[in-house]
Amino acid sequence: MTLQEKFNFVRAACENLCRPLITEDYSVQPSLFASPPKWHLAHVTWFWEQFVLTQYLSGYEVFDDDFSFLFNSYYNNVGKRVLRPVRGLMTRPSVEDVYRYRAYVNENMNKLFEKELSAELIATIEIGFNHEQQHQELLVYDIKYILGNQPTFPAYAKNVFTFKKVPSANIFHKISAGVYEIGHDGNGFAFDNEFGRHKTYIQDFEIADRLVTNAEYLEFMQAGGYSDFNFWHDEGWQWVTSNQVNAPLYWHEIEGSWQYYELGGLQQIALEEPVRHISFYEAFAFAQWKGMRLPTEQEWEVAASKFDWGLLWEWTNSAYLAYPGYVKQPGAIGEYNGKFMINQMVLRGASVATPKEHSRKTYRNFFHPDMRWQYNGIRLVK
Amino acid sequence: MTLQEKFNFVRAACENLCRPLITEDYSVQPSLFASPPKWHLAHVTWFWEQFVLTQYLSGYEVFDDDFSFLFNSYYNNVGKRVLRPVRGLMTRPSVEDVYRYRAYVNENMNKLFEKELSAELIATIEIGFNHEQQHQELLVYDIKYILGNQPTFPAYAKNVFTFKKVPSANIFHKISAGVYEIGHDGNGFAFDNEFGRHKTYIQDFEIADRLVTNAEYLEFMQAGGYSDFNFWHDEGWQWVTSNQVNAPLYWHEIEGSWQYYELGGLQQIALEEPVRHISFYEAFAFAQWKGMRLPTEQEWEVAASKFDWGLLWEWTNSAYLAYPGYVKQPGAIGEYNGKFMINQMVLRGASVATPKEHSRKTYRNFFHPDMRWQYNGIRLVK
Amino acid sequence: MTLQEKFNFVRAACENLCRPLITEDYSVQPSLFASPPKWHLAHVTWFWEQFVLTQYLSGYEVFDDDFSFLFNSYYNNVGKRVLRPVRGLMTRPSVEDVYRYRAYVNENMNKLFEKELSAELIATIEIGFNHEQQHQELLVYDIKYILGNQPTFPAYAKNVFTFKKVPSANIFHKISAGVYEIGHDGNGFAFDNEFGRHKTYIQDFEIADRLVTNAEYLEFMQAGGYSDFNFWHDEGWQWVTSNQVNAPLYWHEIEGSWQYYELGGLQQIALEEPVRHISFYEAFAFAQWKGMRLPTEQEWEVAASKFDWGLLWEWTNSAYLAYPGYVKQPGAIGEYNGKFMINQMVLRGASVATPKEHSRKTYRNFFHPDMRWQYNGIRLVK
Amino acid sequence: MTLQEKFNFVRAACENLCRPLITEDYSVQPSLFASPPKWHLAHVTWFWEQFVLTQYLSGYEVFDDDFSFLFNSYYNNVGKRVLRPVRGLMTRPSVEDVYRYRAYVNENMNKLFEKELSAELIATIEIGFNHEQQHQELLVYDIKYILGNQPTFPAYAKNVFTFKKVPSANIFHKISAGVYEIGHDGNGFAFDNEFGRHKTYIQDFEIADRLVTNAEYLEFMQAGGYSDFNFWHDEGWQWVTSNQVNAPLYWHEIEGSWQYYELGGLQQIALEEPVRHISFYEAFAFAQWKGMRLPTEQEWEVAASKFDWGLLWEWTNSAYLAYPGYVKQPGAIGEYNGKFMINQMVLRGASVATPKEHSRKTYRNFFHPDMRWQYNGIRLVK
Repeated sequence: MTLQEKFNFVRAACENLCRPLITEDYSVQPSLFASPPKWHLAHVTWFWEQFVLTQYLSGYEVFDDDFSFLFNSYYNNVGKRVLRPVRGLMTRPSVEDVYRYRAYVNENMNKLFEKELSAELIATIEIGFNHEQQHQELLVYDIKYILGNQPTFPAYAKNVFTFKKVPSANIFHKISAGVYEIGHDGNGFAFDNEFGRHKTYIQDFEIADRLVTNAEYLEFMQAGGYSDFNFWHDEGWQWVTSNQVNAPLYWHEIEGSWQYYELGGLQQIALEEPVRHISFYEAFAFAQWKGMRLPTEQEWEVAASKFDWGLLWEWTNSAYLAYPGYVKQPGAIGEYNGKFMINQMVLRGASVATPKEHSRKTYRNFFHPDMRWQYNGIRLVK
Repeated sequence: MTLQEKFNFVRAACENLCRPLITEDYSVQPSLFASPPKWHLAHVTWFWEQFVLTQYLSGYEVFDDDFSFLFNSYYNNVGKRVLRPVRGLMTRPSVEDVYRYRAYVNENMNKLFEKELSAELIATIEIGFNHEQQHQELLVYDIKYILGNQPTFPAYAKNVFTFKKVPSANIFHKISAGVYEIGHDGNGFAFDNEFGRHKTYIQDFEIADRLVTNAEYLEFMQAGGYSDFNFWHDEGWQWVTSNQVNAPLYWHEIEGSWQYYELGGLQQIALEEPVRHISFYEAFAFAQWKGMRLPTEQEWEVAASKFDWGLLWEWTNSAYLAYPGYVKQPGAIGEYNGKFMINQMVLRGASVATPKEHSRKTYRNFFHPDMRWQYNGIRLVK
Repeated sequence: MTLQEKFNFVRAACENLCRPLITEDYSVQPSLFASPPKWHLAHVTWFWEQFVLTQYLSGYEVFDDDFSFLFNSYYNNVGKRVLRPVRGLMTRPSVEDVYRYRAYVNENMNKLFEKELSAELIATIEIGFNHEQQHQELLVYDIKYILGNQPTFPAYAKNVFTFKKVPSANIFHKISAGVYEIGHDGNGFAFDNEFGRHKTYIQDFEIADRLVTNAEYLEFMQAGGYSDFNFWHDEGWQWVTSNQVNAPLYWHEIEGSWQYYELGGLQQIALEEPVRHISFYEAFAFAQWKGMRLPTEQEWEVAASKFDWGLLWEWTNSAYLAYPGYVKQPGAIGEYNGKFMINQMVLRGASVATPKEHSRKTYRNFFHPDMRWQYNGIRLVK
Repeated sequence: MTLQEKFNFVRAACENLCRPLITEDYSVQPSLFASPPKWHLAHVTWFWEQFVLTQYLSGYEVFDDDFSFLFNSYYNNVGKRVLRPVRGLMTRPSVEDVYRYRAYVNENMNKLFEKELSAELIATIEIGFNHEQQHQELLVYDIKYILGNQPTFPAYAKNVFTFKKVPSANIFHKISAGVYEIGHDGNGFAFDNEFGRHKTYIQDFEIADRLVTNAEYLEFMQAGGYSDFNFWHDEGWQWVTSNQVNAPLYWHEIEGSWQYYELGGLQQIALEEPVRHISFYEAFAFAQWKGMRLPTEQEWEVAASKFDWGLLWEWTNSAYLAYPGYVKQPGAIGEYNGKFMINQMVLRGASVATPKEHSRKTYRNFFHPDMRWQYNGIRLVK
């Protein structure tokens, strides 16, 4: 694929994801951690306008002066922004206007691709691809959250993502202690938080070949996992009790049997599929109950070639912190990663909702320990 | 107008009010005190289905079983209801579905009108008209609130309601002390809170012929009205300071001059129009500053034939409480009024947004003292 | 009693109330609506210093400059004040210092009483008496709240206040409709909110001779009074559900039987004593359940000579609002009453904790409808 | 010192710290993160009663059955506990009772020391020493917080702790990359979170010989450090803006110059002393502004022999997580450390308030990133 083809491919993917929505679904924000689909569609477009077109396409006229203000996200460096909590009240511009905005920007980007592109510009475009793909994944989670919280549980679409059955046996791969190298080596795109490749000392450990299943998790539930504080972090226990959590997100006990909401609608729990939509607190408590633990991100990366991954983001027991030598980039693009390096935990791997070109074994995803609307799961270490 | 004509007239009025909206505007709830337009449209329709069609039209089949659950409001007596705070996250059913629901119910109601109607049924239908008209007025306020809180201040429509200039002179009508009768006499429709007509003793008082103007209110602002606690109730002063209030709702100081959002968009303050969108706290503080006071609801009703009214709801200094002999009706319809008789203040009159057939001088409107998204204003007494 | 004797009597009463306390009890504030005993002791003393000694005793030197800042309460007109929420963290000055402050001010007041006092000064002193007596009553409630919320339920003292048994028969006195006069006539002390005496029209009504008993209230509880929203105001129902209220304040169900905390410690419910420590919401719901109602304050005052009162403050169904002709006094003393005339309900009568000289049938007490740590009860009207 | 001498020494230290307090100071809790001194005194005593006397001294009778319930802290494994937020409302038992409790337990412990002690018991006693010493340090911080938040800024005592001037030059020690060992080697007491000694790979780094001074921090403040979000974590910036932070804790700008509250009272900032009472967010932002960073806890431990330490706890950029091979102990003692291993940052070293016998270079202290009432400071790495 040429850069231009890739651009058009990435852009189309966003719109494809929204095809099953009705206009009403685009504008609501059911929680502070989620954003309205309309906002995602416009925000990723604003990225191209702000960081590419206004800088590199001479004569480019912005589509609408207000949009920069309305669809800027966390970039404190680029002007005033709409605070997150009110994103879901923004009925104007309309969904139709946002699609027009997308078309306008796409058209101009395609004009730009006819010119010669500097290395610097190409690098920014690469970031744009990755930025848009990250938002595609969030789009899936936010759409699921919007639909899964409707009192009527409407389906998004049938068979969007499938989680194949997990083998029943759980083989553990042994890794020997020693100095290993982790981190991105600089070939191909990576975010700044993956640089630079560096040595780390790892102790002996054994890591599971597969993810924990719904059946295993149900066993934990039935063994009273949610009512014995000994398995939990102190904050995890507060989270359980103050939110009255007794199952993964989207699970509903209906007339005595557990069902969950998936993108295809409400359905019976598939026992042999990997458990998903759990917080770090739950992943940790499950591992404690099992007498095992979660891997560190270093262990995970060192062992990643031994097992398959890519079904679900896998919680690690590593806090999201800077790698040795990490330096925050100046300006808006530097706001991307470094400023979140506190109170979040690293997830490794990828999920079925991660765009195909957007995963690698050095990738460092991160969320607060109570977040569970993303596709995530548990891999054990002993 | 026949009862059937009136029905079709009232129903059409709701839809006319929503004509200028785009689909996105229908589903958001910008505050706990407001409801999404879609919800209003469906809820008033549910009233006809629940209290009329399922009871009086034999063979009637409900449009959708879920709707009774979704669009029930505060009627604790009629099953489980969707809690207010999540109304604005309900993207399904769609706006289109709700319009289909309306058409279906209208069609069946028109079938019903071809039959002979009992007195009891006619009484319920009258309540239905009044219920729908109350929601029409709330629709105006909620639509204004949704659009007026968009960062781009879109207009709803030009010249929807006009507030004619107020005469500059302020004549005071004298009323002599004595025993007067107030309350509804039972001829024509009235809500239960207006019954029954009863004696009340009134002291001498003088009441203004006209409402307070924007110019006069601006004077209060410029005299430091919002920064001297002496004019305010203790709770009013807390409200001012914790919300940093310094002007009526919808007022914006832009480059040194005051503008307000009206349904036609952002515009200069019209100095000779009556001030509107103020809380009871502000109305009270203004009157204190003027060395006057607000009327009681008894005074207002006794004097109401002396002056025009109907531009804005007028705050009184009366708490919303039961009239002598008031008895709460049993069942869902009895939940209408009595249960709100605490911590709210009475407003009298009507506003330009009140449906024409929906005002009378015994009408008792009521809001919490901090509410100001409705059309309200100040009439002084000395 | 001379004015001086009365002064010394009132001052001593405050200290007598605190005699059973240990030092630790003086400084805590278990809720925003309560104040630490130390604060009460100092605040009433500050009143004499601020409004009497510094104005009328030449050469008087304030005890400590900080105290005016620390023990000022709601008087916005007299300098910066310590915000209510942190009163309970003020460990300095010590309890001993506060007693020294009291002695110093008493000594100087006694010097003042040796001089000739102007009418204006005498009026201020009268306010001081009433102010201190109001705080004495609050002291009782706050002390009870502090001790009643200790995990160990320590007694304050035995037999402080006794509630005699209520007669089992409940006679209703009939009052005929007509114009009556209520309000204070100006002979003797009264607060500004009781002035001036004015005509009011009352409809026929019948009022109970005695208060509702614990036995009757228990019947309401056992009949499901706390679980049927039909008896409750909408806000009352929210209060019940969000606070999980199922009994009056201080009631504890211990091994299947109801006990309450009284100043003598935890004890069995005395069934024939009047029910106390209930919110306005509960009083209203009880009356609804009984098919009766609460009196208005006008009815109460008109009928007050027919029955005994003085055991408990009696909730009326009247909102606390200005009487005809009420004008807020200028300055700090004017902050006393007028600024609270919103969102509160009137209670009439007095309680066993009200200082003997501090009750009259025109007295208007007032609290928010959810307050129930004061001694209050229910008298029914039909 | 014998074990018995050490016991009596440690116990006396607690009481010495409280000597300057007045009774009122013992019972308040000015923040959820602090505890009343009375609670500390009783809680550490309860430890001896619960884990030592009731288990090892035959015939021991507990001082008061209620105390176990009242002074248990976070040990979910040992019965119901008083929730943190109400600790500050517990006026009973009195301070005097708590001292009696201490004397009773001391007396019985001294009886126990006359017997032969098992290795298991000695190990528990060692934990008891360390537990009590940890609370001694917290006592200092909580007392400072209680007194430092009085409107009158009373002194605790003169010259309790002194912070000598820091050398003006800042030398950086170079450490070479390689595999190092960190963690406790098992000789002498250590908490479970310090075990076991393990290899770690460290990159080249240079670490400052001394802490950052007040003068340097003031420079950061004057350079606009608190108003440029680029230096801050996203959550740090929210913390700054929502709490309107513009200086370290206890700093007050008085008539244009900065003072701080120290245990000796309010005083001028000593420019050459190390800056203290800053959150992790502030430490990080300062380092960003300097173009440097904080050490990891591994780097700190590897370099600790190169510089002095013990003035202030030093924020590291390491999250508080389990060491390789860490296993949570079963039962109440196991609740000590493991359950806090989320959302907290490690501090290394010790402070002037740390008991002399209670520091070692493997010690891992931890706090949430916004906590700053403890004595802490900044050491830079480049």
